[in-house]
This record gives sequence, C-alpha cells and structure tokens, in this order.
Amino acid sequence: MIVIIGLGTAGVYATRWITTLNREEEITIIEKHSYESYSPCGIPLILERKDDFSKLKHPFPRTRRINVLLEYEAIEINASEKKIKVLNKKNNEIKEIKYDKLLYAAGAEPLIPKIKNADGFINKGVFIVKTLEDANSIKDFIVKKNIKNVSVVGAGAIGLEMAYALKSWNLNVHVFEMFPQPFPRVLDPEMAEIVKNELEKFGISIHLNSKVDEIVVENNRIIGIRSGDSIFNADAIILATGVRPSTEILKNIVNMDRSFIVVNDKMQTSNPDIYAAGDCIITKNYVDGSYAPVQLATTAAKQGIVAGINLAGHDATYSGALGTFVSMVGNLEVAAVGLTENQAKEKFQIVTARAKTLDRPEYAGGEEITLKIVCDKNNGTILGAQAVGKNASSKINVISLAIRKKASAEDLSALEIAYCPEVSDLYDVINMAADLILRKINPNNYTF
Amino acid sequence: MIVIIGLGTAGVYATRWITTLNREEEITIIEKHSYESYSPCGIPLILERKDDFSKLKHPFPRTRRINVLLEYEAIEINASEKKIKVLNKKNNEIKEIKYDKLLYAAGAEPLIPKIKNADGFINKGVFIVKTLEDANSIKDFIVKKNIKNVSVVGAGAIGLEMAYALKSWNLNVHVFEMFPQPFPRVLDPEMAEIVKNELEKFGISIHLNSKVDEIVVENNRIIGIRSGDSIFNADAIILATGVRPSTEILKNIVNMDRSFIVVNDKMQTSNPDIYAAGDCIITKNYVDGSYAPVQLATTAAKQGIVAGINLAGHDATYSGALGTFVSMVGNLEVAAVGLTENQAKEKFQIVTARAKTLDRPEYAGGEEITLKIVCDKNNGTILGAQAVGKNASSKINVISLAIRKKASAEDLSALEIAYCPEVSDLYDVINMAADLILRKINPNNYTF
Repeated sequence: MIVIIGLGTAGVYATRWITTLNREEEITIIEKHSYESYSPCGIPLILERKDDFSKLKHPFPRTRRINVLLEYEAIEINASEKKIKVLNKKNNEIKEIKYDKLLYAAGAEPLIPKIKNADGFINKGVFIVKTLEDANSIKDFIVKKNIKNVSVVGAGAIGLEMAYALKSWNLNVHVFEMFPQPFPRVLDPEMAEIVKNELEKFGISIHLNSKVDEIVVENNRIIGIRSGDSIFNADAIILATGVRPSTEILKNIVNMDRSFIVVNDKMQTSNPDIYAAGDCIITKNYVDGSYAPVQLATTAAKQGIVAGINLAGHDATYSGALGTFVSMVGNLEVAAVGLTENQAKEKFQIVTARAKTLDRPEYAGGEEITLKIVCDKNNGTILGAQAVGKNASSKINVISLAIRKKASAEDLSALEIAYCPEVSDLYDVINMAADLILRKINPNNYTF
Repeated sequence: MIVIIGLGTAGVYATRWITTLNREEEITIIEKHSYESYSPCGIPLILERKDDFSKLKHPFPRTRRINVLLEYEAIEINASEKKIKVLNKKNNEIKEIKYDKLLYAAGAEPLIPKIKNADGFINKGVFIVKTLEDANSIKDFIVKKNIKNVSVVGAGAIGLEMAYALKSWNLNVHVFEMFPQPFPRVLDPEMAEIVKNELEKFGISIHLNSKVDEIVVENNRIIGIRSGDSIFNADAIILATGVRPSTEILKNIVNMDRSFIVVNDKMQTSNPDIYAAGDCIITKNYVDGSYAPVQLATTAAKQGIVAGINLAGHDATYSGALGTFVSMVGNLEVAAVGLTENQAKEKFQIVTARAKTLDRPEYAGGEEITLKIVCDKNNGTILGAQAVGKNASSKINVISLAIRKKASAEDLSALEIAYCPEVSDLYDVINMAADLILRKINPNNYTF
C-alpha cells in the first residue's frame, strides 16, 4: 500500500506514473480539501474575468486501486510502525492508515507576514491567495463591500497578477514590495524596470523598497496600509509574500532544512520509506547545485513523477530544477529560467548580453521582446535567461532545454528557429542575444 | 575586395558579419533587382491584408566600405583571372569587377512546371510568387480583371499561404497537388490530414494526387485548369511548385549536384576563392548527413553568416540544416523540424509518438495542438518532429535545439517549460509526446 498525503500537483503526477507503471499497486490519497486537485495559478485570471473559480477544479480519475479520502487531514505519522493517524474533518473521527511507502506532498501555505493587524483580519479584509475558498472570499468581500482601494503586499507573480486582475476591475491598486524591484528573485534590476513601467502605465501604483508595517484599522474596519511614515487608503489587503511549508507533522521524523524537507535525487527523505515532493521540499538547483525552495507547479509535477516511478518499483533520478517560470502581468509576458546575473556572479565568471527586437516583422504587427542571457565566461555555457515581452516564455522554454543540455551561446547563435512573418522573424531574439555573447567571448572559431 | 552576388538573405547576413568582424574590408554587392533586400515570405500576408508590398523591402545599410550595385546582373565569371562581367540593366553597359574572394548567393527562381500553356501566359493569368513585381502582378490582375476563380498548383507553404490569402478575398480557390497530401516534404500523412481538414473547413478545394496537365485557354484567355480528365474553372493560376537554382553562370567553374552548388562546411565551393550560400546550394542535413536543397530564409541566413565569418578571415563551420519550418495556413500553424517518420525510417530504427492536447487549460481558452515526435529506437535520440495547431512553432523551436544537442526523449520528458494558464499548460504537449516515447522504449531508469 502506497499512501500519498496531498493531492496537489506532485501527488497527482506521482499517482499517474505509479498507476501507469504498476497497475496492481493500491494507493490511498489523503487530501484535506473538500475537492480534488485544482489549479491555484489560475486564480488571478478567473478573478480578472469575474468567472467561476470552480472551473479551476479538475476531478481526479478514480480507479479500483485508488482510494481518495477528501477532507481528511494527516495529524500524526508513526514512522517506526509505518502508520498515519488521520482526522476526518467532517465528523472529527480519527483513524489509522498503514503504509508500506509514503509520499508526502502536502505543499505549503501562504505566509502571513509580521504586519500589525494582519493576523486578526484574515478573511475580513486581509486575504491570502491559495485555495478556491481564499479566491471566493476575496471576490465576495470586494463585491459585497463595494471596495474601491486594494493594496497588495509582495510584487512577485501572485501579487502582480492579482494586482492586474483587480486593476482591471477599475479599483485603485497599490503594490508594496520590500525589495527595490518587482520579481526580486527571478529578474535582474534592468529587466524588472520594464515590468515596473508597464505596471505604472496600467495605472497600478508600485511602491518599492517599501516594507509594510501596519494595516490601519478604525472601528474594527480596515482603512489603510502603512509603510514607514506613509499611509495609503486601503479597504482590502492581499498578502502575497511567500509560503511556509506544511511539514510540522514530519518534524523529528525526517531531515529538514529551514522547515523544508530534504530529499535525495530519488525524492527519498532520510527515512527510506518516506518520499517527498513539491512545495514542501527544498530543491536542488540544476545549474549550481544549491538548495532552495521552488514553488512552481511544473517542478512539483517533475518531482511527483520521479517519486512515483520510484514508488512503483522502477528507478528514476531527479537532476534538479531550472526554475523555468512565466507570469502574465496584464499583456506583459515575464519569463525566466536558471540563474539571474546577480545569482550567477556569486559562483561563476560571467558574461551577459541583452537584445531587444520585435517578435515578428513590423509589417506583420511585431511587438517588443527583450531577452537577457547570462553565460559562463570561460566556455559560453548558458546559466540563465530572462525575457520580457511578446512570446517571452517560448524563448525561455528553448533556453530551459539549452541549460539542461549544457548548451553554449554558440548553440543558441546557431539555433534554427521556425520563421514565418505571422509568427516570428527571420533572426530571433535568441540568436541576437547569443551573437552578442559570442562577440564578447570572441571565439577562435564558430560552429553553426 | 570581396564581391557578393545576390542581396538576398544569405548576402545580407554575410555582409553583416564581414563588416562586424573586419571593418576595413571592401565589399561590392551585385543585385539584379532595383531594390535591396526584401522578405518574399511576407507576400501572402500582405496580399491577404490588401496591403502595400513595398512594406516588404528593407533597405540595406550603406557604409563607406560597402558598394551596392542595384540592377546589375553578373553575366560571366572568369575564375582564373578572378573577375566578373556584369551588365548594367538600366543602360546595358557591361563592366568588369575584380574579386579576391567571391560569395555567390544568387538564390533560386520559381520553377515553371511542364504544364501546357503555362509558359506562354506568365504574368498574363499564370503567376509565380517570388519578387515584389510578381506579387503586384497577381494583385493587379485579380483586381483589374475582377477574377473569381483562382487555382494554385502546389500544396507546400507558398501555395497554401497564397490559397488562404486569396480565399480570404472571397475568391473560389482550388489547390492541386500531385502528391497524396499537403506539405508532402515536411509532414507525415496523418499530420497533413489535419491541415487538409482545415483547408476544407475554410472552403478551399484541395485536389490531391492531382497533377495539372493543362491550362485551358480560349480566345487567348485562361478559362480553366485540367488535371487528368477533370477541368475546373480558373481565371488565374498561381504556380508554387518549387524552384530551380540560379547557377548557370557557375557551370564548369565549381562542382554542382542537380544544378545546385556543392560547398564544404566552410561554405567554400570546389574553387577555394568562391563561396556560396542560400537557395542556390545543396545543403547537408544535420540529422542524417544527406544532401538536399533547403529553401528556407533561416538556413540562408546561417549559411551567409558562416561564409561571412570565413570571408572576413575568421573561422566558421556549418554543421548542417535541420529544416526548422513554420507556415501559417489561415489560423492553423504548421511547423516541423528534422526528419519525418517516412524519411527517418530509411536510415534508422525508429519509434514515434503523437500527443494532442490544449495549449492552455480549457478555462483559459485553450486551443488544440498536435505534436508528433520521431526518435531513434536504440537510444531515444530525437530525429524530427511535426506540430500542427496553436503555438506549433514554439514547440518545434525547442525540438530544433533538442536535435542539435542530440537530446533524447528523456530530455524532453524532463523539459521544464514555463507555466502560467494564460500562455501554457502545466504539462506541455512536448512532455506528453516524450513520455509516450519513453513508455515505448521502456528504459531501465529515468532521469528528470
């Protein structure tokens, strides 16, 4: 019996591969929500369109060998006897489930930062963005209270996508970011500047270097947000300041690093019968081998697959995450992969190049795209890239494979892209940026 | 003195790299047209939009060291004395130009197939599609003669894009293809079927296995087109049946293969002072090492770059073409790279897989995309791919790099794509197709 705790992305993909490779395996899945898997990344889009959040659910295929326990919460793991105490949240009954192998994929919860009054007003004006219930709470509050002023704390993907969605409702939207730029972990400053300008053009006020200190409350109602000495009107606050892993139950059972579970390249924890995958683990970076939490659905899927193959009795190895990422901030596509310049230069001698062009010829309606590539100076190996503008993610997907295959700027200079004026230009922004790297490295010979 | 014959894509890119690497080099360019470089691939799009074909021109940057002779035609090459006889087409004067190194990049001309009456009616109802003059002739003829019925001969990219453009003018459009499918050289039959269905849905009549025998003429006016025993109304005919290289002038001077110039991997012909690039040469296939003409602007650009670097006194090697290709047939994107199944199975033991999915989640407005991958059965190495549907070319661009880097299905299964519901789905069609290959190969261990 394989038990999986959490039917998020990692749990779903693990189950798929287990059942594909080993049809006889019995699987029990413990999921605390009342619904099966869903797409949290779709929340800002559905909000923007004033659509129904239940569209984000995707029912899990039930088979004879898969038992899904919804609204059950794992409350205790006994690793020596290989059993789990679970709480039925509907009737408060507790029962025990035995496992041979366990996959822990319970994910992470949004972090509620230390801001005065944040804790006390959760779902009463202060909101996190994770579950469909969270999403409905935000929508209901704004509609029913006829909210005009919303502040978003955190200028990462979730914060900015929510800010854009709410701005498109014609609300006054302020975004607060303690770092000096939006997307502080994935973009270099000059690329982030393009995003900032776009946000401002759309009428979103973005406050950088602005730690939020207090949610200002009057008569038990939120009226503002304070950063330092400045107070801004705010009737509702969205918190998008990162996550903390849901790993308390495994404390003292498996090795952890900063509360995230540590796994080997088989997705196995320090207890060989317990595997872990997804947002609750700390993930190896493919490029530099460092470890950090990665909160991407695609990473969770890959890790779930690796765990699933191993749980099914086959052999799979996870070689690390590239952090391939895209966010749509209004009409601006922002994508990145691998290391930023700032991250790369701590460990490598680097060379960078930035190219800006139209994605298609001007006569075909070309739109701007800017691509930055970060390479190892010694051999031109690609370490990372960032793209902002039209089709940014399609450029980044190519570079994702480039990094995986240890490709160099020369390979990207030689890259043969598909050209037709309606979809692309003859010489791609990838070719252009790579050529600039080549000119800086100045190789003795070129191979195309 | 470097002399370049032909200011098409190969000539333009060669010139750019020569001047970048060696600012002192003097270059003379001989171009028979009255305008500098332009984008022939844009003709169908401009036609569809009833826009101005002159938008396809892109003036060439003049510098002190670059001398562009427009409306000059090279009429004789004396390789032993390294000089070229050129004809000034405006005043019929002939002069001689000396060269130290010559780049021959004169391209190819549309082939006029052996169809009764085709030759006699060129530009009087029968048209080729290459120059801006050709494009204007087509547009003028259709508008002035109030044409209702157009037939297109050849169901490759140019033929189908022209057919779509003219259908969007509400003309009756028939396409004739002697092979049993559209895109006969780049798609396998089942992928071509998707294109055929789309053409028919749009109201274009497509006649497969249909060699055109005669253009039917009455009173010196075109009235129909005959294939076998069937005659169809036609007031205008577009020929899109391939090209013949413009290489007569080099006959007996450099080695040729089927009238195409043979070059080594430095883009050097059998005469070491004469280089050649673009549509006039026969090109090595990167995947299987075979030689064939490749009529792609992107290939011409790469070959021009390699020739340019070598002409500038540096060292560049061309490792072959992948044939990365995209065509927009109406709203249907058709793209391919590397070998088709039919081409690959002549030389490799292969395994193939086809995945069909939505490019984005359904709630985000996902549209269909079908991807077929062809792999070497022994090691999963990617040999080719074809994609039809939304964002087809962005999938093919990733696989273009995959083939170049000898990546395997495992690498594509592990590919980390950028996910955000507005632009992509969590599990990409590339991942899906690669997974299917893995299941067929059934590896002992998987690396993600």
